[in-house]
Amino acid sequence: MSILETIRSRRSIREFSGQKVSDNHMGEILEAGRWAPSGLNNQPWRFVVVRDQDLKEGVAACTTYTRTIKAADVLIVVFLDSDVMYDRTKDIQAIGACVQNMLLTIHDLELGACWMGEILNRRNEVEKLLEVPENFELMVVLAIGHPQPGDRSGSRKTPDELIQARFD
Amino acid sequence: MSILETIRSRRSIREFSGQKVSDNHMGEILEAGRWAPSGLNNQPWRFVVVRDQDLKEGVAACTTYTRTIKAADVLIVVFLDSDVMYDRTKDIQAIGACVQNMLLTIHDLELGACWMGEILNRRNEVEKLLEVPENFELMVVLAIGHPQPGDRSGSRKTPDELIQARFD
Repeated sequence: MSILETIRSRRSIREFSGQKVSDNHMGEILEAGRWAPSGLNNQPWRFVVVRDQDLKEGVAACTTYTRTIKAADVLIVVFLDSDVMYDRTKDIQAIGACVQNMLLTIHDLELGACWMGEILNRRNEVEKLLEVPENFELMVVLAIGHPQPGDRSGSRKTPDELIQARFD
Repeated sequence: MSILETIRSRRSIREFSGQKVSDNHMGEILEAGRWAPSGLNNQPWRFVVVRDQDLKEGVAACTTYTRTIKAADVLIVVFLDSDVMYDRTKDIQAIGACVQNMLLTIHDLELGACWMGEILNRRNEVEKLLEVPENFELMVVLAIGHPQPGDRSGSRKTPDELIQARFD
């Protein structure tokens, strides 16, 4: 699959089979996140990997999308380390790049993931539950597993709605 | 190249040959950006493609990294459309995912790019120069071209510095 095909065929996955995500695959996914670009190469991302069943249930209770988290085999919880932050906008962009690297790798491995954002409403509870340092700010929860089969449609605005050109 | 190899071998490129980036390649790069994920699928990214020499010089004058912009064949200037914004943190993460899709595609096409952030210091000037609507906020300038040959090193924190695990 070309990278553009990988990008275009990726979808959010919210239903998972019970199959385990291997440690090798987890290593590749985190490696992809680690190699994202960031301003001044400050690498503001920090990861907490959650496989513990009780902890997963605790995280699931912090969002209205409980079912997706419970169904996932493993979570990667992504934090911004405010101790290395230098510009909030650029650091948050870097987090987005890091998450996208992981999502593309997950899809390439024929795994599936859902990028959970609504859970930020209760970020203090998640941070407390996962016992992260005070300088860690919750950014994203990735719910990861083997996807249940199914057709998932995707829609985007047209190029004309998004692009303007300034040519000679 | 596997996607992980693409991710790991990508580097910022600041020196370009004079060769033109084809319209086909520009189409693929923008297509990659268009298919990024975003919260509520709000797709807050907007693109202005700059090939016009005078405009390019004008943008180059808004950053201390003038040379990189002047050397690039073409710029993709990425804006956040505040009219469709729903959560600033999540929208800026989405912009980061969109930019990373484009950077990976650029690298896969054997082109090169530099993600310019310092230019945000003078975002008002760039926005005026490119005559974008008031609701467009400058996020990133991508300077794109055919890379000059050269070895570019990359360094990242170790997995142990970034990852904590919560297993059963």
